[in-house]
Amino acid sequence: MTGNMITVEQIQKAAEFLKGKVIRTPLVFSPNLSKMTGMKVYLKLENLQETGSFKLRGATLKIGIDRSRIGSMGVVAASAGNHAQGVALAARRLGMPATIVMPEWASISKQEATRGYGGELVLCGKSVGDALDKAREIAASGKTFIHPYDDPDIICGQGTIGLEILGELPDADLVLVPVGGGGLIGGIATAVKGLRPQAGIIGVQAAACPSAYMAKKNGEVLHVEARKSLADGISVKQIGDVNFEILRKHVDEVVLVEEDRIAEAMLMLLERKKILTEGAGAVPLAALLNGSVSRPGAKVVLVVSGGNVDSPLLDRVIRMGLSRNGRVMRFSVYLEDIPGSLASLLTLVARLQANVLSIRHVRTGKDLPIYLTKVELELETRGWAHIEELAGELRAAGYQVRTELEE
Amino acid sequence: MTGNMITVEQIQKAAEFLKGKVIRTPLVFSPNLSKMTGMKVYLKLENLQETGSFKLRGATLKIGIDRSRIGSMGVVAASAGNHAQGVALAARRLGMPATIVMPEWASISKQEATRGYGGELVLCGKSVGDALDKAREIAASGKTFIHPYDDPDIICGQGTIGLEILGELPDADLVLVPVGGGGLIGGIATAVKGLRPQAGIIGVQAAACPSAYMAKKNGEVLHVEARKSLADGISVKQIGDVNFEILRKHVDEVVLVEEDRIAEAMLMLLERKKILTEGAGAVPLAALLNGSVSRPGAKVVLVVSGGNVDSPLLDRVIRMGLSRNGRVMRFSVYLEDIPGSLASLLTLVARLQANVLSIRHVRTGKDLPIYLTKVELELETRGWAHIEELAGELRAAGYQVRTELEE
Repeated sequence: MTGNMITVEQIQKAAEFLKGKVIRTPLVFSPNLSKMTGMKVYLKLENLQETGSFKLRGATLKIGIDRSRIGSMGVVAASAGNHAQGVALAARRLGMPATIVMPEWASISKQEATRGYGGELVLCGKSVGDALDKAREIAASGKTFIHPYDDPDIICGQGTIGLEILGELPDADLVLVPVGGGGLIGGIATAVKGLRPQAGIIGVQAAACPSAYMAKKNGEVLHVEARKSLADGISVKQIGDVNFEILRKHVDEVVLVEEDRIAEAMLMLLERKKILTEGAGAVPLAALLNGSVSRPGAKVVLVVSGGNVDSPLLDRVIRMGLSRNGRVMRFSVYLEDIPGSLASLLTLVARLQANVLSIRHVRTGKDLPIYLTKVELELETRGWAHIEELAGELRAAGYQVRTELEE
Repeated sequence: MTGNMITVEQIQKAAEFLKGKVIRTPLVFSPNLSKMTGMKVYLKLENLQETGSFKLRGATLKIGIDRSRIGSMGVVAASAGNHAQGVALAARRLGMPATIVMPEWASISKQEATRGYGGELVLCGKSVGDALDKAREIAASGKTFIHPYDDPDIICGQGTIGLEILGELPDADLVLVPVGGGGLIGGIATAVKGLRPQAGIIGVQAAACPSAYMAKKNGEVLHVEARKSLADGISVKQIGDVNFEILRKHVDEVVLVEEDRIAEAMLMLLERKKILTEGAGAVPLAALLNGSVSRPGAKVVLVVSGGNVDSPLLDRVIRMGLSRNGRVMRFSVYLEDIPGSLASLLTLVARLQANVLSIRHVRTGKDLPIYLTKVELELETRGWAHIEELAGELRAAGYQVRTELEE
């Protein structure tokens, strides 16, 4: 296999082919993240790519150069999300039919997006592995199977990101790349090491699914068990074969990040940088936040690989962030069950400059004396100090306050 | 005043001064929005600017060139948000104190961000006008007052955005710019018309606060009453004087957008383009969505002026979007009050591939017979057709379903 290693020249050819067909996404310096980490942090915003992720690059290259061989039967692919959208759009642009097999649990928004790009959807199986089996079965009837990562053309397509990074920042010191099956990091590592061997390439995975981490550590492709992760886009239980050879040769290290840090990174990118990332797209920042990667003063590029996150999940991340930063205070308080009690409480809350987000008034309950009512309040607050001030003032005014943590 | 009009050369000098001090934000083509509108739509992502909005440009220029005159007493400004952050950061970088007066209702996150950039906060008054009065009062004691828009240096700073747009897209046909006090559009219009007179400049305001629209229409500066708007960043009741002269000369038209369209535009930019915008930043897209601006085939640049939106508001926009697109179904259903009823219902819901978001079980109520319980369900759905399918199947199975619309 080593004899078949992809070269930087192949990736340069891929970039020629893709010119005008995919967006050259911006590389943006982040003064905030730089100050926070002591490095010079740049973000490669591949979430701004059409279809919301880098997958369009590989799919457009693969289907484009194999166009005549694929013919009118079209293509088939298996994916829980981003590859599905990339293949569907790339095929539609060439007027070809695309069948996409998704596992049954694939998010509704990703199903709808794939249909929106003209893909014919087949829901099948409990895992991406099951979906891959089904896709290969469909391919047997004449459609061309497009692998999500274990394919030199796909890798070359994703590698064009590496060329763009060095085009804008020729003296980059370190590039952090999310790793699932290894298509993205395989391409970027080949491009970057080919042009600037002294630059470091670090892969980042969710600790919940450490397939590339284990492969790198053990020197062989391994199958791992996966736990559920916010970074579903890189939840691949086994790295590809072509990809592993590149990982072994060109990737300096693979590091792991926990779910909490991924959520924190998603929230930070949204609040500070005003960009929406999916869990997989946020793992490079998570690796800076947990200290796995630290290189004071270095120019570090974080590849924000995609932004396709379901709205209900986004909602949960935002709420979690508010709670974590002391921006929401939840507590209950007992009031005398007479007119005016609630108005007095809310007047005090207003004076302390907290904003009411929700309120619930409970009049019966096993622990509730007959002459009292219980009020559950959710307030928007300025931070932990503000919460302490509120609790103190409410108690000083005679209220029996029980905060969320005390219950 | 016309004799004092700002020139494109002054803006070019401003760009020289700002080089390396502010981010040259990306201009990104959007294939999706282009297809949807029949134009070639580009987004100038000023929400990626440090502090999350364009205001840093003008503040950095103003404070930087007046540095020696301002001296150690520092600066004072009034703002409900973005100008506050811009002035605070620009001053801190030069080691100067900054006092920022905000109206009492200013969002907690904008207050915190301003404190985070080192600004000393004074909360005062019910409107930005009140805050401006207070700031001028503070200025009388020796601090230099930094006006948010009615100042040639501030206008020149914001105008550098126009130079960057033409630098990347020299043949732009039309530039859509949010208008509040007129600093942003004043600068951009001067730069763009100076270099490419045939390009159109259109200002966009929320219908809730049409100060520039009325001024343009009547040919004079007017004070308007304002309703509450999602676009709080451009809720300015009277355009600036310097700004009005530029508006009269260089801006082709001012159009208005309603709140619903602003929310829709915010959601579209988040879901399709993966970027977070505040209401003011979304009004240019809203003007395409409501048909106010239509120029088939033209290269249209939307200036996304900022991304500072409060998380609780963002949360409401996301939820509204889900409801609008048929992605959430809310309904109630009566069940026999016996073990297993709820399980049967949820099994049917699962078979129809809807995901439960929330559930509430009500056992007493004035319209509730003693042998029935009422269940309120919120489901994640694929769209309106899916909702109809669900309602039909549930009724066919004998459930008394009342959807949100029927209640």
